[in-house]
Amino acid sequence: MRYNPVELILKKRNNEKLQKSELHYLFTAYAAGEIPDYQMSALLMAIYFRGMDIDEIKTLTEIYIESGQQIVFSDQLNTVDKHSTGGVGDKISIILAPIVAACGAKIPMISGRGLGHTGGTLDKLESIPGFRTDYSHHEFKELVNKVGFAIIGQSENIVPVDRVTYALRDVTGTVESLPLITASIMSKKIAEGAKNLVIDLKIGNGAFMKEMSTAEQLADFLIETGRSMGQKVSVVFSNMNSPLGNYVGNALEIRESVDFLKGAVIPDLEDLTLTLASEMILMTGIKSDKTSAYQMAKEALVSGSALKKFREFIEFQGGNSEICDNLDLLPKCDYQISIKAKKSGWIKNIDCQKIGYALIEIGAGRKKIGEAIDPGAGAKLPWKIGDSISEGDQLGVIYCNDKIRGSQAADEIGNCYQIQDIEISREKLIFKVISSY
Amino acid sequence: MRYNPVELILKKRNNEKLQKSELHYLFTAYAAGEIPDYQMSALLMAIYFRGMDIDEIKTLTEIYIESGQQIVFSDQLNTVDKHSTGGVGDKISIILAPIVAACGAKIPMISGRGLGHTGGTLDKLESIPGFRTDYSHHEFKELVNKVGFAIIGQSENIVPVDRVTYALRDVTGTVESLPLITASIMSKKIAEGAKNLVIDLKIGNGAFMKEMSTAEQLADFLIETGRSMGQKVSVVFSNMNSPLGNYVGNALEIRESVDFLKGAVIPDLEDLTLTLASEMILMTGIKSDKTSAYQMAKEALVSGSALKKFREFIEFQGGNSEICDNLDLLPKCDYQISIKAKKSGWIKNIDCQKIGYALIEIGAGRKKIGEAIDPGAGAKLPWKIGDSISEGDQLGVIYCNDKIRGSQAADEIGNCYQIQDIEISREKLIFKVISSY
Repeated sequence: MRYNPVELILKKRNNEKLQKSELHYLFTAYAAGEIPDYQMSALLMAIYFRGMDIDEIKTLTEIYIESGQQIVFSDQLNTVDKHSTGGVGDKISIILAPIVAACGAKIPMISGRGLGHTGGTLDKLESIPGFRTDYSHHEFKELVNKVGFAIIGQSENIVPVDRVTYALRDVTGTVESLPLITASIMSKKIAEGAKNLVIDLKIGNGAFMKEMSTAEQLADFLIETGRSMGQKVSVVFSNMNSPLGNYVGNALEIRESVDFLKGAVIPDLEDLTLTLASEMILMTGIKSDKTSAYQMAKEALVSGSALKKFREFIEFQGGNSEICDNLDLLPKCDYQISIKAKKSGWIKNIDCQKIGYALIEIGAGRKKIGEAIDPGAGAKLPWKIGDSISEGDQLGVIYCNDKIRGSQAADEIGNCYQIQDIEISREKLIFKVISSY
Repeated sequence: MRYNPVELILKKRNNEKLQKSELHYLFTAYAAGEIPDYQMSALLMAIYFRGMDIDEIKTLTEIYIESGQQIVFSDQLNTVDKHSTGGVGDKISIILAPIVAACGAKIPMISGRGLGHTGGTLDKLESIPGFRTDYSHHEFKELVNKVGFAIIGQSENIVPVDRVTYALRDVTGTVESLPLITASIMSKKIAEGAKNLVIDLKIGNGAFMKEMSTAEQLADFLIETGRSMGQKVSVVFSNMNSPLGNYVGNALEIRESVDFLKGAVIPDLEDLTLTLASEMILMTGIKSDKTSAYQMAKEALVSGSALKKFREFIEFQGGNSEICDNLDLLPKCDYQISIKAKKSGWIKNIDCQKIGYALIEIGAGRKKIGEAIDPGAGAKLPWKIGDSISEGDQLGVIYCNDKIRGSQAADEIGNCYQIQDIEISREKLIFKVISSY
């Protein structure tokens, strides 16, 4: 059967459901260069407005998966991955994976680079001298089997149709479509071989999802799509109204991760990491109740076994694990610029997205794919909503190599904090957890 | 100021108004090849869903006009044009222009070819042996000044940004957007030099507008855009649930036009043509009240002065005006296939759009730009909603050169007529007239 792309665009535009064969035609013909970009982008915008039902989402997920290779691990049931929808100061993968690996699970993690105002795990890890993220599927499987976890970049052979579609979405204002986000996340994670998946679904002004209702819709799509493909999915709804931890920036977040794994008390990092870790331990069946799963994860952290795994991981991926003993081996910046509080009171609101974009200006992230970053650049931003502060106190510190841009960023970030006279309570970090198992 | 196309797409997608400078950048950079098709098509789809307010529509109309040449007539106030949103059997321009020219107005008409299921005035006129529609702006002005009217094709120098945008809309499912339709119609008509404009806004199953509410919104946009540009606009809302006149097809409609100008009684053609003509006579100030304007138009028809103008027009545009005396000089088809009524009763519904598409199959129209047509092909379809008919009566006749396709079309068209046992009244042809003057 021969399809007419315009008729299919009109069908979606007019709110009719696209059939499996129609979606298959559209996306594979697009990837094969038989449907031009301008028709696909019109279709994607129509999908943005009209949505997709769960059948369409499952079909698209399958199309994405089947377009490329799938990695298969021998001890499948033991594999678990975590995906974050992205936030500011989100170094969770880096501390979570060694904890869960220390508990006996296998974590095959394929990660990304910074996107929009959020940082990327690969960029952070590459600030470790010598660290590599470009491994073949075969090497990746070996690393996971030996160390218990590995974190590498996406190869071209995984979900190629999603990759070309995503590149088009990125330049046509069609990223924020829940059905397209669902198919994109689920196809990648299923193709990467982990049979269990926990999603850190971030909500707030520093996240891509600003509203709980949108996040709940996405969680439903993710869980339902996973269910139909035999993939266990657990969703942790977490607060992204304050930066996570104390630091934002690539090498700065590696420092903080090492500190954390060595025992530093950083309450929000601990809370979120151990919640995600215990879900992962439950999903793989290593423990069967939440309390013992949580305790097992906490023990891996406190005992230093997670730190040991982390050292091993760095070494196996070509990095210098001495950074764990001497943090000065990590890239640093020439200048530190203090950000002062302009008034006394309680922090009512923090514009995390603006903070993310301000830090891109000093090199902590990219404006365009392929741009170089300054691994040492970033900021210390330890305050959270509900904290009280006095005029002139240090609200944060900018780390940079360009004094002028650094001062501008300090100014901008200072303005991201809204301080009020009336006391305000701290916000919850974990809203809720929904699991499909 | 440097704009980011993605940000502007997102702005429209998120329902924010685009500023004049932003629209200017988007459409002129697109036409200049600086914004790729895939971004423009995403923007057009976002406009389809979000619409545009009247300021945005006016701005876009200006951008379209300013992108090309404008024709200016010396006796501007006397110039008037008619635009039809397209129907089945719509030969109105061909009989209307000579009537109004005979009353003293100047009608510079730049017309189009068949679009979708509807026919095109240029295709109809080109069935007259020798008739030409390709004239320069200079020649066009001369023709209008000498004859009183001319009907030619659009040159490449008129609204080029609309032209490239329209071509993209056509292949991306973004034609049916009222703001884009408004800017497209108004820019073309203003650039073509007529200071007064009457719109035959067709509503019904044979029109692009199926709903009165949509048509009213379009009329508001057209009138308001005209007002802001010193263009008088009058909108005649007409019924397109039955084919207009007795014939559909290129040479067949020329025959019918000649018959009509020679005195044949064709009630719907007369009603619509004289309504449009009197509006045009009023707008140009030739008459100042509806009754005398209508009578003047009727007199031009009855006296034969319109027919005289029509002969002159054919000769000036290179055609053989002897067709007016000998209709057999027009292209004809080899076969006539009768369509019989399958039951007795009253015609309840006619699927005019389906009729249009069925006639394309026998060569009366095009599926693709540039395709050849069969000028003699078409159908006699004299019955209207509310007419009573007996089983076995002739519902219509197909004129064709391919017997097999002709029989298929006869079958299909026969099924387009829904006949019921209960008497049903005829429908109104003219719903209402709204004028801006």
